[in-house]
Amino acid sequence: MMSDQESYHMTPDQFRRWGHRVVDWIADYQERVQSFPVLSRVKPGDVRAALPGAAPEHPESFDAMLHDLDRVILPGITHWQSPDFYAFFPSNNSGPSILGEMISAGLGVQGMLWATSPACTELETHILDWVAGMLELPATFRSSGTGGGVLQDSASSAALCALLAARERATNLVSNEKGCDRQLVAYTSSQAHSSIEKAVKIAGIGRSNLRVLDVDNTFAFRPELLEEQVAKDRALGRVPFFVSGTLGTTSSNAFDPIAVLGKFCREQGLWLHVDGAMCGTAAVCPEFRWIQHGLELADSYCFNPHKWMFTNFDCSCFFVADRSALIRALSILPEYLRNQATESGAVIDYRDWQIPLGRRFRALKLWFVIRYYGVTGLQHHIRRHVELAQQFSRWIQDSSDFEQPVPAPFNLVCFAHRAGDDFNRQLLQRLNETGRIFLTHTVLHGRFVLRMCVGQSQTKNEHVRNAWDLIQRTAAELKSGNSSICQ
Amino acid sequence: MMSDQESYHMTPDQFRRWGHRVVDWIADYQERVQSFPVLSRVKPGDVRAALPGAAPEHPESFDAMLHDLDRVILPGITHWQSPDFYAFFPSNNSGPSILGEMISAGLGVQGMLWATSPACTELETHILDWVAGMLELPATFRSSGTGGGVLQDSASSAALCALLAARERATNLVSNEKGCDRQLVAYTSSQAHSSIEKAVKIAGIGRSNLRVLDVDNTFAFRPELLEEQVAKDRALGRVPFFVSGTLGTTSSNAFDPIAVLGKFCREQGLWLHVDGAMCGTAAVCPEFRWIQHGLELADSYCFNPHKWMFTNFDCSCFFVADRSALIRALSILPEYLRNQATESGAVIDYRDWQIPLGRRFRALKLWFVIRYYGVTGLQHHIRRHVELAQQFSRWIQDSSDFEQPVPAPFNLVCFAHRAGDDFNRQLLQRLNETGRIFLTHTVLHGRFVLRMCVGQSQTKNEHVRNAWDLIQRTAAELKSGNSSICQ
Repeated sequence: MMSDQESYHMTPDQFRRWGHRVVDWIADYQERVQSFPVLSRVKPGDVRAALPGAAPEHPESFDAMLHDLDRVILPGITHWQSPDFYAFFPSNNSGPSILGEMISAGLGVQGMLWATSPACTELETHILDWVAGMLELPATFRSSGTGGGVLQDSASSAALCALLAARERATNLVSNEKGCDRQLVAYTSSQAHSSIEKAVKIAGIGRSNLRVLDVDNTFAFRPELLEEQVAKDRALGRVPFFVSGTLGTTSSNAFDPIAVLGKFCREQGLWLHVDGAMCGTAAVCPEFRWIQHGLELADSYCFNPHKWMFTNFDCSCFFVADRSALIRALSILPEYLRNQATESGAVIDYRDWQIPLGRRFRALKLWFVIRYYGVTGLQHHIRRHVELAQQFSRWIQDSSDFEQPVPAPFNLVCFAHRAGDDFNRQLLQRLNETGRIFLTHTVLHGRFVLRMCVGQSQTKNEHVRNAWDLIQRTAAELKSGNSSICQ
Repeated sequence: MMSDQESYHMTPDQFRRWGHRVVDWIADYQERVQSFPVLSRVKPGDVRAALPGAAPEHPESFDAMLHDLDRVILPGITHWQSPDFYAFFPSNNSGPSILGEMISAGLGVQGMLWATSPACTELETHILDWVAGMLELPATFRSSGTGGGVLQDSASSAALCALLAARERATNLVSNEKGCDRQLVAYTSSQAHSSIEKAVKIAGIGRSNLRVLDVDNTFAFRPELLEEQVAKDRALGRVPFFVSGTLGTTSSNAFDPIAVLGKFCREQGLWLHVDGAMCGTAAVCPEFRWIQHGLELADSYCFNPHKWMFTNFDCSCFFVADRSALIRALSILPEYLRNQATESGAVIDYRDWQIPLGRRFRALKLWFVIRYYGVTGLQHHIRRHVELAQQFSRWIQDSSDFEQPVPAPFNLVCFAHRAGDDFNRQLLQRLNETGRIFLTHTVLHGRFVLRMCVGQSQTKNEHVRNAWDLIQRTAAELKSGNSSICQ
């Protein structure tokens, strides 16, 4: 046998040394993140071209890896943690969150069963109850009743789990056993997140059995269209089973009338899933809690602390009112996972609440974030982001060159220059090419519209003010045909 | 407006300070992990009982969190990173992997699109090609051809993606569009991982349309049963479409005859997915590469560096021979995700290769691991684990009290005391109650059997030797009716 002395592992002392270096690298990154172009400027293939074609035969020094982080990786990063990032949605992080993720990696536990690390499961259940309390979510979502919460990797996976639980409830487990033998129909609005369509495809329901309903002028769900369509589908012998509503749509931050949808879904026995991916966090502030009106009629709800609650991806809170439906849809118990705790029925095994079997200790980072900020601190920063977006919205509305086609209730402002789609497309490209801010777009009422989403942890008054100055200046120069600003 | 001065964030300097403390905490944990009972001794509810009932209103010190890690969390941890952990499968980590995860959390990028951080996508494609090279995987799985690799959170999700791609290929996208309108049939062996059954349920195929076929005496797939069953199903007008084989089953490490299955699947137009979750890593050593015989006939393959390749969960390598089938099954492109790079067709957008939309920068940790160990270092430790398991297997076979019901080709040894099931159940419970090792069980040929799986990064000769001593001593004392050892 080989000698036990020979080892390629990093020793704890080496880990200490390199770990301190990595922590310093991250702190330095935080301090210099604004020095990089927000949107990466590399071209397709640039990053790969800087890497050797094959894995190294022999060990390399950790120093070489840190060196390559700066040389190869940073130029290819789009800086989601820059205070000048206003694109898509925030995917913010924070010190306590990063530290929680570090500890999770260091402990390296599998949380698939209660027994495989009771703290991983119990902290998660507990913190999800904390979150339900912080947001004043309906009591149905607490673990003390028939429901409870679980951390998913994303709102997409949460929506899929909701759809699967709904399918099993609607078919009395026939779908699980025999496949989709009836023509099930799901409903959402044209403004719902793409994950609903993806979930419908994955579950084998079929895209043509998802009714994508028109929205009103504010891009919100029209419940009367749902009622009509459900009646039509029933008349055709189809089986309506699932409705998805949104608190703050991705495109324009529209809010669906959850209470009306919920009442109808209850009457009709349809599962109502509500997606509050970004704006759900706003409910940490009492003055914004109106968004949850009617949520007590929903069967499931999801929002993402990894969007706007300072918790690095992945950390999506998914709540169900009836956990037994979810577990029935996803439960598997092979012999090699059997154990006394599971068989006692006294514990939660979260593997039955999600698509994968394995799971990391995600609750740690959320626990750290909530404790480090306190409810007060979270409220402070959420209010601050909303204020900054509202200030930006006022600037847009006060400007003669720009307009805002839809209300901006929270932290997302959709706006467009009055000069038309082509101009706005060019404006967006020029702004992003400056490297100083990063915005993305959507299409509303057939028009190309820029989206300014304020939510990165470090975004302050000065950043939003600078962004507005840059937007005005770039538009003016584009108008006058001067392109030098982009150099 | 509130002052910008007021902030609850952790500053970079505070992050430096607490980050160093966390790194030291992890290093200390590595040094003292053997001082804890491997299997947590808490009872259901213990962890929750140690936590406040509601989220704190005001910020707490990070010190308090570190204190609670020791007070509340550690007693509730089952120590997967202990060298005395032999249960389930390894979920090992390593210094470079933890550091890669830290940087991923610090950068906090979203890798859903190439454009949202080109380095995140390109490093992943590149490292998966490195892995294909390291293992000498078939050329069909390289990104330079029609295939390529992607990191999934787990082999469960990889199996689901494979099943969905297979479904779409078999139905010419009809399933995507209209749902499962034909009676599709999937095939696997009774020893396949539970994730196959779970995937079949999720996709709406229905459990009764999964043919779970009997295995041979070594618990391997019997291709002749597959041939018979496919013929029967075709005769009944059903549509066979998917076969899943395994390289190293979870229960007993059996190897399915992939070449035979592959040849049949090609002839019949069935998608062959191969799951090498744990033992796939063995192929890093040329002498173990025989396990991949026939893999060139597979449509998809998966193995988990987060099991036995020193990369903390989650990190599952999933390869497909025809990436277009996978993308057709999972692609979604809403307006708000449109961008020039995607429309150019010159880049990969990994959101279309997986269930969720969002994704973290997982490739960093795998890159660090491969570089820090080098191929040589990975080979060294894999060989070492196999040697240790083989030594344990010889001890079992040389013992008059124990027997080994199936071969142990790699790092998993299934064994049982000759005194029968009840005795073995008691033996397992006593061993785990000592806190000094953690084993789990399975059932083979109707008998209760203990599983000794060697694969934790730090497990060395002395640990396996001590485990064997403890097993022998505990069995002897149990036999003589002396229960004091467990106190």
